Amino acid sequence: MTDANQSARKSNPFQPISTAVLEELKAAVGETFLLTEDGMLSEHGPADTAQVSALMRICNSHRIPVTVRGAGSGLAGGALPVYGGLVISMKRFDKILKIDRKNFQVTVEPGVITEILQNTLREQGLFYPPDPASRGWSFIGGNVSTNAGGPKAVKYGVVKDHVLNLEVVLPSGEVIWTGSNTLKNSTGYNFTQLIVGSEGTLGVVTKIVLKLQPHPTQNLILLAPFRSAESACAAVAAIFEAGVTPSGLEFMERNAIDWAVRYVGETPVPINEEDEAHLLIEVDGFHLESLMADCETISRVLERFDTGEIFFADDETTKASLWKLRRNVAHAVKRNSVYKEEDTVVPRGELPALLRKVKDVGARYGFESVCYGHAGDGNLHVNILRGSLSEQTWNEEVPKGIREIFTFVKSVGGTISGEHGIGLVQRQYLDIVFTPTEMELMRSIKSVFDPNGILNPGKIV
Amino acid sequence: MTDANQSARKSNPFQPISTAVLEELKAAVGETFLLTEDGMLSEHGPADTAQVSALMRICNSHRIPVTVRGAGSGLAGGALPVYGGLVISMKRFDKILKIDRKNFQVTVEPGVITEILQNTLREQGLFYPPDPASRGWSFIGGNVSTNAGGPKAVKYGVVKDHVLNLEVVLPSGEVIWTGSNTLKNSTGYNFTQLIVGSEGTLGVVTKIVLKLQPHPTQNLILLAPFRSAESACAAVAAIFEAGVTPSGLEFMERNAIDWAVRYVGETPVPINEEDEAHLLIEVDGFHLESLMADCETISRVLERFDTGEIFFADDETTKASLWKLRRNVAHAVKRNSVYKEEDTVVPRGELPALLRKVKDVGARYGFESVCYGHAGDGNLHVNILRGSLSEQTWNEEVPKGIREIFTFVKSVGGTISGEHGIGLVQRQYLDIVFTPTEMELMRSIKSVFDPNGILNPGKIV
Repeated sequence: MTDANQSARKSNPFQPISTAVLEELKAAVGETFLLTEDGMLSEHGPADTAQVSALMRICNSHRIPVTVRGAGSGLAGGALPVYGGLVISMKRFDKILKIDRKNFQVTVEPGVITEILQNTLREQGLFYPPDPASRGWSFIGGNVSTNAGGPKAVKYGVVKDHVLNLEVVLPSGEVIWTGSNTLKNSTGYNFTQLIVGSEGTLGVVTKIVLKLQPHPTQNLILLAPFRSAESACAAVAAIFEAGVTPSGLEFMERNAIDWAVRYVGETPVPINEEDEAHLLIEVDGFHLESLMADCETISRVLERFDTGEIFFADDETTKASLWKLRRNVAHAVKRNSVYKEEDTVVPRGELPALLRKVKDVGARYGFESVCYGHAGDGNLHVNILRGSLSEQTWNEEVPKGIREIFTFVKSVGGTISGEHGIGLVQRQYLDIVFTPTEMELMRSIKSVFDPNGILNPGKIV
Repeated sequence: MTDANQSARKSNPFQPISTAVLEELKAAVGETFLLTEDGMLSEHGPADTAQVSALMRICNSHRIPVTVRGAGSGLAGGALPVYGGLVISMKRFDKILKIDRKNFQVTVEPGVITEILQNTLREQGLFYPPDPASRGWSFIGGNVSTNAGGPKAVKYGVVKDHVLNLEVVLPSGEVIWTGSNTLKNSTGYNFTQLIVGSEGTLGVVTKIVLKLQPHPTQNLILLAPFRSAESACAAVAAIFEAGVTPSGLEFMERNAIDWAVRYVGETPVPINEEDEAHLLIEVDGFHLESLMADCETISRVLERFDTGEIFFADDETTKASLWKLRRNVAHAVKRNSVYKEEDTVVPRGELPALLRKVKDVGARYGFESVCYGHAGDGNLHVNILRGSLSEQTWNEEVPKGIREIFTFVKSVGGTISGEHGIGLVQRQYLDIVFTPTEMELMRSIKSVFDPNGILNPGKIV
């Protein structure tokens, strides 16, 4: 990331901010700014849509890059201001504006922490499912900008499936709404879905209308150990084929779960030496009997694979403890080694082949990897460990291996990011998944919204 | 529609097709064309993506309008070639290319009839939920182009929620894929969702990859009569608030159900004089006990409203007979009177207010209306009856009333089409829902894909 960052700086086509423009910006939001090495970071950030609009108008007329920053928890460098300019912090957009229980909708500002939003809604029996691992600190606006996922996506869909309408400030300072507050809409082009996942390159999201549903009242968890990691991957598709749609279906390689157990310092279930991988399977709903029946169906499916003893959890403490393990895998890996995290996604039936490919490429390029992720929707996080690799191998050889993995992913109908986004760090691989025509279309769409190219320059397109 | 059609013709900016170009077009698809008054209709239509690409390249270079036609079942005039030119029939794109049971996906050509696709999938236990009333004759490609809905949308979402990836021929003749065959995708801009619902104005869809799910094995139906139509509308939101998500929640005004009974010639349940409206409520799933519990919850909710005796259906014949009634309402209305069909959609809690508004506007402008539709997702079809209205009232006064209804719809967070599209007939009302900035953005997006404006000119933008 540092390298990409440095090379972007060298070729910066933008001018630094002049003192006169700085004064104009300060006047627009009526408060002090804090200058940083990267250009300028607003100390408190704008307070409302009108202030964002004023800032955008000034930056657009002076061709000053604008990078919108949520909680900074992104995994693709999307919030890094690689060309300097203005960084707009959204942290003051921290209000849940309206919980509309009657219509199962919430209107929220982008700077609300996802888990705070979820907990507030839950108190009223309402459910907003997308739950990225970062939900305890990431902003809902950042989740929208990357089209985030999380374990629940397998049953409930990703962020895009829950966004009904967005208020967006364009670089011109104009404010639009992208849709309507309805479950269906066949009125004109779908701007809502164009903005979701656009990583701050098309406009600044200032209000979000989300679809909600009744919060499930029951859930059960199974943890299944597998002698072979490939066999665990194969079991994933078989579970769906049996007619069950779990609310979580997570895959963890041996290292992932081992390191997580050590990092968390506890586990409700012994992890056996001989198991290569585990599946964590959750079902949820409103009728316990149906969920018990689903668990029986799942168990029958798993029996066809080489599993060890399946651990069943129906009490809150054990279930929380199992999810805590899964949610801490990324932290545990980070503790163990410098790493590159790849966010591969394939049709779920291709998971065994993807895992085989990752290990094969690793063997040839000399790197180790820890794989885990949302296997239910074919989203495998491939953490490539730096370990004791040389600078040269890490910076020159490993990217070649990643390119091989991504090329495979594309060849089986998958793509290079399932939920993290492209940002800065994955840009170099876009040629694998997009044709020149498709890239050109993206650049043209970008120009429609942002003709001067001031919004998050150096990202995606 | 005829008026809008005629006025478009008068100001046709396109030249007629010359004999030389006609020869070029014939050579491209290697067969005869049938000339019509509207320009040209290919007798058999192109056979594959390469032929569509060849036709597009020729039309683009000669600035010939291209209107793509599926089954012609659209309700907004989207497939009418108002500026003449080439009509591309997609009827030869009639193949289900690949049913991928392992990944719960199907790849299908756009000319497959929706119900044929659904039945073929069902034989393998697979479920593609969107079921517009026209499913027995509409093409899946047309469903994609209008972002169609249907009764199941309330639980399973509309077409856009099921489209993973599209092959699209651009006016330049270039062929792109819009996404990946995966459940999650955070890789670049969401072209898939930009094409869905764009009514043939951005590109020609030639392959469709749809997400599937296990087919529910059980369902139950309730038919609830209400003394007051507004009360029926109010009950809709209450059912969801009780924590149940039905797989169908249909509203029918007295006239709608009366006419449908007469049209179909049978009914499994007597319709009482004093009931103003009915709700048809379906729940589906895999566990009968859960569905029985859901029906009990729904019944308890309905008791709080002024319902008559609730009719419960659990045998296939009665259930089919109830759905047959509902599905034939549109035909029955058509049989009774010339009408304009408006496709209003609001947050579902606003349904009682919308119904009140429709009746109030009707009283003031002197028209009668029959309302019915997918109340569960706030989608109310307002059929305005011509009856004995004069030409002048019908053409000049009624549109003012429609404008009032649409303005109300917009004011409560709704929009003017939930599932039919804008096409030709709703264009005149777009200023109610879009600001000039938003309209300009749509025009610019259109220009990115179709710089010469040859694709379905006169529609949406």
